[in-house]
Amino acid sequence: MRIGIDAMGGDHAPEEIVQGGILGLKFLGPDDRLVLIGREDAIRGLLPKDVDPRIDVCHAPEVIEMHDSPVESLRQKRKSSIAIMAKMAGDRELDSVISAGNTGACAAACQLRMKALGPVLRPGIAVVLPTFAGPLTICDAGANVQPKPAHLLQYAQMASAYSSEILGIKNPRVGLISVGGEDVKGSPLVKKANELLRADPSIDFVGNVEGRELFSGACEVGVCDGFVGNVVLKLTEGLAEGLFRTIRREVAAESEELGKRIEPIFGRIWQKHDYSEYGGAPLLGVNGSCIICHGSSDRRAIFNAVRIAADFINKDLNKTILSRLSEVTADA
Amino acid sequence: MRIGIDAMGGDHAPEEIVQGGILGLKFLGPDDRLVLIGREDAIRGLLPKDVDPRIDVCHAPEVIEMHDSPVESLRQKRKSSIAIMAKMAGDRELDSVISAGNTGACAAACQLRMKALGPVLRPGIAVVLPTFAGPLTICDAGANVQPKPAHLLQYAQMASAYSSEILGIKNPRVGLISVGGEDVKGSPLVKKANELLRADPSIDFVGNVEGRELFSGACEVGVCDGFVGNVVLKLTEGLAEGLFRTIRREVAAESEELGKRIEPIFGRIWQKHDYSEYGGAPLLGVNGSCIICHGSSDRRAIFNAVRIAADFINKDLNKTILSRLSEVTADA
Repeated sequence: MRIGIDAMGGDHAPEEIVQGGILGLKFLGPDDRLVLIGREDAIRGLLPKDVDPRIDVCHAPEVIEMHDSPVESLRQKRKSSIAIMAKMAGDRELDSVISAGNTGACAAACQLRMKALGPVLRPGIAVVLPTFAGPLTICDAGANVQPKPAHLLQYAQMASAYSSEILGIKNPRVGLISVGGEDVKGSPLVKKANELLRADPSIDFVGNVEGRELFSGACEVGVCDGFVGNVVLKLTEGLAEGLFRTIRREVAAESEELGKRIEPIFGRIWQKHDYSEYGGAPLLGVNGSCIICHGSSDRRAIFNAVRIAADFINKDLNKTILSRLSEVTADA
Repeated sequence: MRIGIDAMGGDHAPEEIVQGGILGLKFLGPDDRLVLIGREDAIRGLLPKDVDPRIDVCHAPEVIEMHDSPVESLRQKRKSSIAIMAKMAGDRELDSVISAGNTGACAAACQLRMKALGPVLRPGIAVVLPTFAGPLTICDAGANVQPKPAHLLQYAQMASAYSSEILGIKNPRVGLISVGGEDVKGSPLVKKANELLRADPSIDFVGNVEGRELFSGACEVGVCDGFVGNVVLKLTEGLAEGLFRTIRREVAAESEELGKRIEPIFGRIWQKHDYSEYGGAPLLGVNGSCIICHGSSDRRAIFNAVRIAADFINKDLNKTILSRLSEVTADA
């Protein structure tokens, strides 16, 4: 197994990325390899003298910045860590790749180089959100902002496979994110996708779900277009962080002693609901494995991403996905 | 001023609706009227013997249920409280209407009967969300799930007027909800709407905003299609309620005494962030005034809705909206 990590991607690159990779070696077997891709001198400077022999460094002189345009930057920075990493994966020199860098560039490069998995029409990003009722896998979280109904059907099939194989949820229930619980409500995309999902006996479709029910256990898989999924993901992060901050501040303002006493309880709750525990978001539907991490990833997030990448390969998730996918045309 | 209330709409109708209306009389002048519309016997049974003479009851024998199809139910239940109320508004017998019932039916009936305001192409629902940085007005929250770019421009113009006139925010900054801060990101709808918004000097457009920034004060007005707006609204409700519940439970499980001490602090924070304080969501862009309330509205929410309805009329909000609207075609 060869896992590649974009050492230059993310707000805390390369330091936290490299350290997270080293920690993640515990998920690799004795013959596996971990390839750190990026500026060689910067990476080598972070490695200990007696570096684990399973670590390789692959030099990439350029860096795609977080705010670069995905398509433009891939065209102009052919020697960037993301471009080189994706090419290596396409050439089967890597089994899985991990990046906390520019999400659009990483998703585009991996789709271009790895190609689609079997009958997959469009890959989708599956993100796992911790909810009050357990982990919820949302697909798509931003790869495809204007999908067709058939894409949503495939997202349901792929995310169900991910939820059951990687998260261990037996028969994940699939909900279609909409503006009302009734089948007749929603956009034309949602109405048509609802029909396709209802007609597929291989998934446990519970119907349309509203934003309100997403966090209370209405389903374990939530399907939506990449625009809605991205807004859901980022809104959830911003609101949860803001609420925690507000409550902490108000309690501490009331009584310093009370503030101190609730701190450890808050820490525990926060950790339980911290999405970085889920180790990044897989780009499902490429012929390979690509784990996209949050730009703010620290070493723990990268450590968890290596765990997911190894799990993805060891369990041969793509084989399960292939067995669940229907052959559909985009016009279905 | 004549304000009509759908006494049969909402989970707690007619009791809480009627009581909220009675409380709301404090916002009416001596010559104003409050018309309660619904089953006369049910409403009369809830009114005190010495009922305020400004209250009228208008009999409507039918009720549109929360889960009825909006279009179907309006066709079949012509004597429902919503249908009769909207007709009265269209005939200028009411200056403003309030309903906590079926949102789709209420919005459709009001659009049909009141007609559009001046050059408005499609009315939009403006909902006010309490954030950590003050009230955020989101438009559209569900009237129009497949808008055109010109509709989003008008939502920005109308919601800016609402935010400044009703919420008292001087020069509200407008953000376009998208999947990235850069102008080039987003769906085709968002990219085109971004251009229209940039070209309008009458609004303070701050560009695209991500879900993450919505609650931290990036803007006072958030513009989006009705599908995204509805998901944002309901997700916010569900997540905030769930987080509060979880924190309360975990603190109480740790120490009963601690749980009791934080209760009043939590109550205060919750109230500060309680959207029912904002009194329902106006359907902006109809030639009249329609306030749509949450299905779970209690008397306090209806009381606040009467306040908003009175404010809307007293401040002649539609005049301000008309002065701010550009004449655009749907294909702009």
